[in-house]
Amino acid sequence: MIIVLKANRSEEQVKNFISNLTDRYDVSVNTWVGTHSTVLGLIGDTAAVDSEYIAAQDIVESVKRVQEPYKKANRKFHPEDTVIKLPTGQVIGDGSLALIAGPCSVESEAQICCVAERVKAAGATFLRGGAFKPRTSPYAFQGLKAEGLELLKKAKERTGLPIVTEIMSIGHLDLFEDVDVIQVGARNMQNFELLKELGHVHKPILLKRGLANTIEELLMSAEYIMAGGNEQVILCERGIRTYETFTRNTLDISAVPILKRLSHLPVIVDPSHASGINWLVEPLAMAAAAVGADGLIIEVHNDPSRALCDGAQSLTPDQFDVLAKKVQKVTETVKSL
Amino acid sequence: MIIVLKANRSEEQVKNFISNLTDRYDVSVNTWVGTHSTVLGLIGDTAAVDSEYIAAQDIVESVKRVQEPYKKANRKFHPEDTVIKLPTGQVIGDGSLALIAGPCSVESEAQICCVAERVKAAGATFLRGGAFKPRTSPYAFQGLKAEGLELLKKAKERTGLPIVTEIMSIGHLDLFEDVDVIQVGARNMQNFELLKELGHVHKPILLKRGLANTIEELLMSAEYIMAGGNEQVILCERGIRTYETFTRNTLDISAVPILKRLSHLPVIVDPSHASGINWLVEPLAMAAAAVGADGLIIEVHNDPSRALCDGAQSLTPDQFDVLAKKVQKVTETVKSL
Amino acid sequence: MIIVLKANRSEEQVKNFISNLTDRYDVSVNTWVGTHSTVLGLIGDTAAVDSEYIAAQDIVESVKRVQEPYKKANRKFHPEDTVIKLPTGQVIGDGSLALIAGPCSVESEAQICCVAERVKAAGATFLRGGAFKPRTSPYAFQGLKAEGLELLKKAKERTGLPIVTEIMSIGHLDLFEDVDVIQVGARNMQNFELLKELGHVHKPILLKRGLANTIEELLMSAEYIMAGGNEQVILCERGIRTYETFTRNTLDISAVPILKRLSHLPVIVDPSHASGINWLVEPLAMAAAAVGADGLIIEVHNDPSRALCDGAQSLTPDQFDVLAKKVQKVTETVKSL
Amino acid sequence: MIIVLKANRSEEQVKNFISNLTDRYDVSVNTWVGTHSTVLGLIGDTAAVDSEYIAAQDIVESVKRVQEPYKKANRKFHPEDTVIKLPTGQVIGDGSLALIAGPCSVESEAQICCVAERVKAAGATFLRGGAFKPRTSPYAFQGLKAEGLELLKKAKERTGLPIVTEIMSIGHLDLFEDVDVIQVGARNMQNFELLKELGHVHKPILLKRGLANTIEELLMSAEYIMAGGNEQVILCERGIRTYETFTRNTLDISAVPILKRLSHLPVIVDPSHASGINWLVEPLAMAAAAVGADGLIIEVHNDPSRALCDGAQSLTPDQFDVLAKKVQKVTETVKSL
Repeated sequence: MIIVLKANRSEEQVKNFISNLTDRYDVSVNTWVGTHSTVLGLIGDTAAVDSEYIAAQDIVESVKRVQEPYKKANRKFHPEDTVIKLPTGQVIGDGSLALIAGPCSVESEAQICCVAERVKAAGATFLRGGAFKPRTSPYAFQGLKAEGLELLKKAKERTGLPIVTEIMSIGHLDLFEDVDVIQVGARNMQNFELLKELGHVHKPILLKRGLANTIEELLMSAEYIMAGGNEQVILCERGIRTYETFTRNTLDISAVPILKRLSHLPVIVDPSHASGINWLVEPLAMAAAAVGADGLIIEVHNDPSRALCDGAQSLTPDQFDVLAKKVQKVTETVKSL
Repeated sequence: MIIVLKANRSEEQVKNFISNLTDRYDVSVNTWVGTHSTVLGLIGDTAAVDSEYIAAQDIVESVKRVQEPYKKANRKFHPEDTVIKLPTGQVIGDGSLALIAGPCSVESEAQICCVAERVKAAGATFLRGGAFKPRTSPYAFQGLKAEGLELLKKAKERTGLPIVTEIMSIGHLDLFEDVDVIQVGARNMQNFELLKELGHVHKPILLKRGLANTIEELLMSAEYIMAGGNEQVILCERGIRTYETFTRNTLDISAVPILKRLSHLPVIVDPSHASGINWLVEPLAMAAAAVGADGLIIEVHNDPSRALCDGAQSLTPDQFDVLAKKVQKVTETVKSL
Repeated sequence: MIIVLKANRSEEQVKNFISNLTDRYDVSVNTWVGTHSTVLGLIGDTAAVDSEYIAAQDIVESVKRVQEPYKKANRKFHPEDTVIKLPTGQVIGDGSLALIAGPCSVESEAQICCVAERVKAAGATFLRGGAFKPRTSPYAFQGLKAEGLELLKKAKERTGLPIVTEIMSIGHLDLFEDVDVIQVGARNMQNFELLKELGHVHKPILLKRGLANTIEELLMSAEYIMAGGNEQVILCERGIRTYETFTRNTLDISAVPILKRLSHLPVIVDPSHASGINWLVEPLAMAAAAVGADGLIIEVHNDPSRALCDGAQSLTPDQFDVLAKKVQKVTETVKSL
Repeated sequence: MIIVLKANRSEEQVKNFISNLTDRYDVSVNTWVGTHSTVLGLIGDTAAVDSEYIAAQDIVESVKRVQEPYKKANRKFHPEDTVIKLPTGQVIGDGSLALIAGPCSVESEAQICCVAERVKAAGATFLRGGAFKPRTSPYAFQGLKAEGLELLKKAKERTGLPIVTEIMSIGHLDLFEDVDVIQVGARNMQNFELLKELGHVHKPILLKRGLANTIEELLMSAEYIMAGGNEQVILCERGIRTYETFTRNTLDISAVPILKRLSHLPVIVDPSHASGINWLVEPLAMAAAAVGADGLIIEVHNDPSRALCDGAQSLTPDQFDVLAKKVQKVTETVKSL
C-alpha cells in the first residue's frame, strides 16, 4: 500500500502517523522523502489495513493499494484452480463446461420433472429451479417456497441431478438440507450476514455478481464466505446494470477471464439473466464458452409462454438441446487450441 | 397497460390470449385492431399484472405500463403528504428540514454521547450511529453490534434524541426494540425477506436507495414494507453508482422532487455517503434543502481522523454547526417563495 | 407509434391534435377510446415523426414507438446481409472473419511496414494505423497527421493491405483520398456534420460506437451516413463506459447479435479498446468470433513498450499470430454448427 | 507521479527505465526500494507525462498520478476565479448568478424576439437559441442554420442580449462572427479538432460536459481550448448518462463544487437538458443556485407544445419569470451566509 502525504505536513506529524500505523496493523513502513511530497510504503498484511481509515487522516493526500484486499480468493496465494466436486460426482472447475439448467421457478411436480429429464438428456449435470423468488413487486409470484424445495427433491430422485437453488434468508437455511449447491442471488451479493452464515455451511455456494458490483467487490463477497471456512465458492457473472436498455443487463464477458486470472475459484455465466431475451441466450452462451467459463446456468421451461416468471428469457427444451451441443463443441475447440 | 401484438397472429390466438388475461387477472380488455397491428388496453388492477409474464407470450410484440406498479406508495391514491411523527414528538415530512446526525459507527460511550450532545445543540432532532456495519471487506471493523445499540440507548437517555440505526438481518430484530427508526441500508434495499418482516414492525423505516436501483424500484421496495401494514416509510437518496470516480457515488438530486411527486412519503438525502468527501457534504446538503428534501442524514464524528469507518466523509461537530445553520436558512428561504 | 392521451382531455382537443398530426406527418391515425384513457395508433412513415414533439403536447401522457426510427439501416426493409467489398477484393460481411490489424499510431516507416508485413503474414486483410489521434490531453502525442497517411500508403504499397484509418475533421477529407476505409472514432459517433459529409463519400465507413451510446443511437448514426447516399457502413462495438474500473471500457458482447438482428450491416469488434489490457485481447476476440462478428480490429505493435500510444493494450506480432489462428478456428467451428 | 514496478525486475531494467524517463520528459526520478517492490516518484512537469505509455512498460505494475494532468485550467496555478466579461458588460463568474435563456431552436423572427424580450424582462442577461441542432435522427429538424443566426442577431439588436449558440463544425466558424459566446455541445466535448480551433478564437466558449465524460475529462477539454490561447472558457454541467431512465440524464450536482475547487473557471448548470422534463427544471435550478453555480442555461419557449425540438423540457415565459425570481433569492441567501 502506497500512501502519499500532503505537502504541508511537519516531520513530527509523519512520525506520529507512522507509529499509529505500526501499532494498529501488522505492517512495516518504508518512507521515501521527495522534494515536494513524502511517500510511505506499507509492507505486510495490508489486506487488513482499512484504506478508508488511512484516507481520512489529515496528513494523507491519497492512498493506493498495490496488493489486492482479498486473500483466500486470491490466485497469488493459491495458484491451482479450485475444483468443486459433489459427493455424487458432478464437477465444476476441472476444465469442462458444466451445464446447470432448469426453470426460473418451480411450479409443479410435472413441470420440474419434465424439465429435469429434458435438460439431463441434453447433457446438463445440475438442475436449477427457484423455490424462493426475489421479485421487484410484492404483488408478483414469490415462489412455492418449502413446497418448491420438495418438488426439486422429487426431480432429483427421478433424474439424479443435484439441485442448485437460491436462498433469500438465513432463516430458511434448515430447509436447504437436501440442496446440493446454494445460490446467493445478485441482490444479496452484499447481504453480509447471509454470506457469513454460508461460511459455516458444508456445501458449494454459487455467488452471483450484484447488478452494480465491481469484480473486486464480488471477490470480497467470496472472501466473506471463505473467511468463515467454506472455500467451495463458484463465482457467477450474470450481467451488470448500464445505460443500455435493449437488454435487461449488460453481460460483462471480460469478467470471466479477469476473475480466472485474479482468483482460483471457478467462474460460470448466466446468459439468461444477462440478456433477458431468449434469442440472445445462445450467442451469449457461445461467447462464455469461448472465453473459458467453467459452466453455464440457463433457464429452460417446458412452456415459456406460461412460465410464472422470466418466461421472456427461457428456452424451450428443444432450444436447450441445440445450445448444449453447440457450446460443448466450442469448448472442445477452445481447449484443443 | 398497453399490449402491442405481433403482426402475424390469428384471430383465435388473440381471443385465447384475452380470455387468458381476464381469467388470470381482475382486468377488462379493450381491443383496437389497426391495419398492421392489434393493440390491447388493460383496465383495472394492473399493478397486479406481471408485465414479464405478458412479454413472454408468443403473440406479444411489446408491453407498456400506463399506471405505476406501486399502489400504497403512490401519491395518486394518497394525495396528502405522509408525516412521520414519533411518540416523543420529532417529525419528518411536515415541511420542515429534519436533521439526523451522528457517527458512522458507534465506538464508545464517550464518543457517541459527545457527538449526540454536539449535534443536538446544533439543531439535530435524531441521532444516527451504526452498530451493525455492512463492510465490503470481512477484515474491516464490523461494528460493536449489541453493545453499540446499548451505547446508543445511553446517548438517547442523555440527550433525548431518538435513535436511527441500521438493521442487517431479521435475526437481530429483537435487539432493535429501543431503536426509534430502523434503517435499511442501500445494499439491502432489495433484501425482500427483510422488507417483508419490517412490514410487521410498528416503527418508521428509513429505506435507502440501492447503489444501482431506479426510482421506481425504490418505490417498489417501499411497497413491500407498506403491503405488510407498516406505512411509515422514509425514503432516502444516498447517491447512485455511475462511471464518475471522483466521488464515491453520484448524488441523484433529481430523485428528490421526482419521489415527492410520485409518492406521498417523506424524502431525505444523505450527502455524506453520496460524496464520500467531507468538503462536499455542505454544498450537497444545501442542494437538498433547495429542492425541498424533508431531511438530511449526516455523518458527524468528534475526531474524523480516528473514526473506525468513513472518516473521510465525516464532519467535525464545528463543521456541522455551520452546516445546520446554513441549510435551515436555505429551507426558510425556499419555503417563503 | 402508440400515443396515450391524458385522462382529462376534451373531445375537441383530441380532434385538433389528430388533425395537427396528419397535417404535419404522412401518417394515418386510429383512435381507441377506453373508459379512462384514449390511445392513438399512428400508421405510416413514423420514422419521420418526432417523438419528443409528440411528448411535449399538453394532452399527451406518453409515447411509445412500435417501429424503429431507422430505415436504411433496418433489416426489416433490407433482409439480406450487406457485404462490403473493396475494389482490391477484400471483403467484410460475407460470413468470414475479417482481421484488421496494426498499430494504434503510425510512428515511422520502419514501424508501420514491419507491423504490416507481420499482420499480413498472420492472415490480416486490412491494415489499421492512426495518423490523426484523438487524445484526452492536448499535451499527448497527436499523431503524425499527413505524414502518417503517407507512411500508411507506403505500407500498403509494400503489402497490398488496404488502409483503415480515423478521420477527425471534415477539413482533412482531401488527405484521405488513398485511404480505403475511413474510420469514425467513438468520440465522433455523434459528430453529425462529419457523418453527413461521409454520406457523400464513395468508400466504406467504419463507425465505432460511442462510449455512452445505445445500440439504437449507433444505428441512427449509421442512418445519417446512409441517408446521404453512402450505404457502405461497418458497425464496430468497442466497449462502453460503465462503473467497472478494472477494464478501460466494458465490452458489450450482446451488441453483436443484436446489431446483426436489427440491421443488415456488418458488425466488427475492437477487443483492444474494449479492454485496454493486452492479456484480455485474445479471450475477447474469441468471444467475438463465437457470437458471429464479421471481423476484428486489433492493435499490434512491434514493440508495445515503446508505442507512442495505447501500448498497454497492444499485442506483439507473435501474440497476434497465435490469436489469428485461434479465432479463425472458432469461426470455423461456429459456422459448421 | 508514482510508479510501482513489478517484483521480478532486474536492477539493470530499473536503471534503463529511469534513464528512458529522464530522456523523454523534463522530470527527475526518486527511487524507493522496498523488500518486495520498487516505487519511483516522478517530480517536475508530470502533466506532459503520458501515463498510458508508462503503464505499457514491461516492468511497470501500476501508475498513479499525484498531480492533475491539466495546468491552465488548474486552480493550483491560478488561484483567483476567472471572470468572463463581455464587451457589452455582461458577466459570468463574479459571484452573481447569470441567467442564459431562450428556445432550444430558433424558429422564426417573431418567436425568437418574443422569447428574448420576455426572458430579458425576467432578468436574463444572455439569449440562447440553437441555429445548428445536433439531432439523433437525420430525419428530425436540423435547425435554421445561417438563417437562424440572422434571426438571433435581430433579437440581439432588439433587446441588447448577447447571443449564446452552438457550433457543430469548424467550417461554420465564419458565420459565428456576431455570436457573443460560442457553445460546444455535449456530443462534441471531445471533438478535439474543433476545440483546438476554438483555442484561437477571441470569444468566450461555453463547454458542455459530455454524456459520459468525467470531471477530469471536461477539464482536459477546457485545457485544449486554453492551450491554444483562449482562456475564456465557461464549464457547463448538463447531466450525465446513467442507468436511471426516469430523467433523460442524471444531473451531477456535485460536479459544480468539485469543478470550482479544481479549477478557476466559471461553472454553470443546464437543468433543462439534465432532466428533459419541464417540471423538474425549477427544482434543479434551485439546487444549482444553492451549490454556488455561476449561472444557469434554461430553455424557454413561447409555446412549448409547438416547439420544433425539446418542447417537453421547455418552460413558458411565465414559468421562467417565477424561476428567475426564486433562484436569485436562493443565490442571495447563500451568498449572505
